[in-house]
Amino acid sequence: MSRMMRSVAVAVALVALGCGAAGAEQQPAKGKTMTEVLAASQPSDWRRLDPDNTMYLDFAAGRVIIELAPGYAPQHVANMKILLRQHYFDGLSILRVHDNYVVQWGDPDAGDKDKAKPFGEAKRSVAGEFSQAIAKQPFVHLPDGDVYAPQVGWSGGFPVARDPKQGQTWLTHCYGMVGVGRDNAADSGSGAELYVVLGHAPRHLDRNVTLVGRVVQGMELLAALPRGSGALGFYEKPEQRIALKQVRLGSELPEAQRSRIELLRTDTPTFTALIETRRNRHDEWYLSQAGKVELCNVPLPSRQP
Amino acid sequence: MSRMMRSVAVAVALVALGCGAAGAEQQPAKGKTMTEVLAASQPSDWRRLDPDNTMYLDFAAGRVIIELAPGYAPQHVANMKILLRQHYFDGLSILRVHDNYVVQWGDPDAGDKDKAKPFGEAKRSVAGEFSQAIAKQPFVHLPDGDVYAPQVGWSGGFPVARDPKQGQTWLTHCYGMVGVGRDNAADSGSGAELYVVLGHAPRHLDRNVTLVGRVVQGMELLAALPRGSGALGFYEKPEQRIALKQVRLGSELPEAQRSRIELLRTDTPTFTALIETRRNRHDEWYLSQAGKVELCNVPLPSRQP
Repeated sequence: MSRMMRSVAVAVALVALGCGAAGAEQQPAKGKTMTEVLAASQPSDWRRLDPDNTMYLDFAAGRVIIELAPGYAPQHVANMKILLRQHYFDGLSILRVHDNYVVQWGDPDAGDKDKAKPFGEAKRSVAGEFSQAIAKQPFVHLPDGDVYAPQVGWSGGFPVARDPKQGQTWLTHCYGMVGVGRDNAADSGSGAELYVVLGHAPRHLDRNVTLVGRVVQGMELLAALPRGSGALGFYEKPEQRIALKQVRLGSELPEAQRSRIELLRTDTPTFTALIETRRNRHDEWYLSQAGKVELCNVPLPSRQP
Repeated sequence: MSRMMRSVAVAVALVALGCGAAGAEQQPAKGKTMTEVLAASQPSDWRRLDPDNTMYLDFAAGRVIIELAPGYAPQHVANMKILLRQHYFDGLSILRVHDNYVVQWGDPDAGDKDKAKPFGEAKRSVAGEFSQAIAKQPFVHLPDGDVYAPQVGWSGGFPVARDPKQGQTWLTHCYGMVGVGRDNAADSGSGAELYVVLGHAPRHLDRNVTLVGRVVQGMELLAALPRGSGALGFYEKPEQRIALKQVRLGSELPEAQRSRIELLRTDTPTFTALIETRRNRHDEWYLSQAGKVELCNVPLPSRQP
């Protein structure tokens, strides 16, 4: 099997590693592999998820963990927390899996006033939070360019873009990002219907949708769901829909039921060194090095401590 | 359901449409949607697959159709045709599904001399065909830029990149592209082990691997396969592997068993108009237009006539 094991490069999705080794260094590494950079990381390079900004989605295939981004979508995240505390999502369904695009869940009866699940204290309409003032947000710049935006990089662990002329910054539609389904009107979303990006980043959706977070664990469970055969990947028959068993805010779960996952900080020399390992691969298999890396191709590593 | 149906944009994967309507125009359209551009296409905008450069892969989930690219990988495609005519792939398996990266198939016993399936007349080693001379290849330029290459565009229906200074052009690792697994040596691939890109385009693989074609139908079947839990997404248990029932060159199949799929030519004003509909979306749902489009986000439409 060794021949095949080496056939197509190294794992670039979620990486789980032990704690920082002795003799680790903080300088950006030249000539290192990603594995080496992560092995040399320090405890301070990692952060825990904030249970009050983490969403746990349990369904038949397993658990999906989403980190929320209140800094970029304060009103939507606040509304989602109201829905979450009411256990609004329990028993709703994955309604749509559109290949190379999105998986989406919500209330299948949302359009039927008599059958739709009540929103309780939550709002049915939240003004679009498509971008934010640059001044409010931290930013780590990726200097390799971008087709869609003047600048790209990371902010608090999320991939972002910026337009300094307009003074605006926004979350970007990379693989695993979570967005708010909406109707044609900018304020027609609420956070009750959510989608997750799968496939090649649909960056044309940037600034058209409120992004509210990112899947930090379990993306492979969503990505492997059967594609819907209806228009836009909707499941055509109700029995094809996939039920959500329980969806909870982390702070509502007993401590023992929360994940202890840690995420690599994006504002550290270790992350800068990791970017360099993605620009120029020093793994033995590579014959040619790209010299650059695209925003959505930089992994955001996690680990179980 | 209408609220949800409109929630996240239009279908951008495979598009199946009826034949060109009366009054169709050939000028690049401004302000049109992709649906309108395709509805106005002419019969001459479409091409049939060449059965001698089409691979039909049948497995339990259905059929995957791959268009081969002999212009970019003549030696590998020739070797694959020898393997195909020997029915080499029948009974082999999908061995690996690596989330947001690749699905890969081949001989699970390839590393065992006693059990490996014989290659017959085919070569076990073919020199890497990582790029080609620009002069030999047609090219339709996408002027929106690219992180990884000086120029990108399309060549005979395939996404490509170019470096005019080096005089080289190569196929790019967009969603659905098919590549040749290899060992560390440049000539260690043969075409007996193939992978298909799923997830965000791993463009750092460009010029490191011989790309031999593109999935033109059935990508959603490969993309929905369970991810492997082993290193690099390999299935850990033999019983998890997914058998290939029959893999054939189109010209070997009886006419009735071949697909009548047609592909939109990429060297036509209709395709140029389609690119414009992806840069600036005139569908009612969009509030903000990207103004540009990335190579791997431009769909390559197909239809069943």
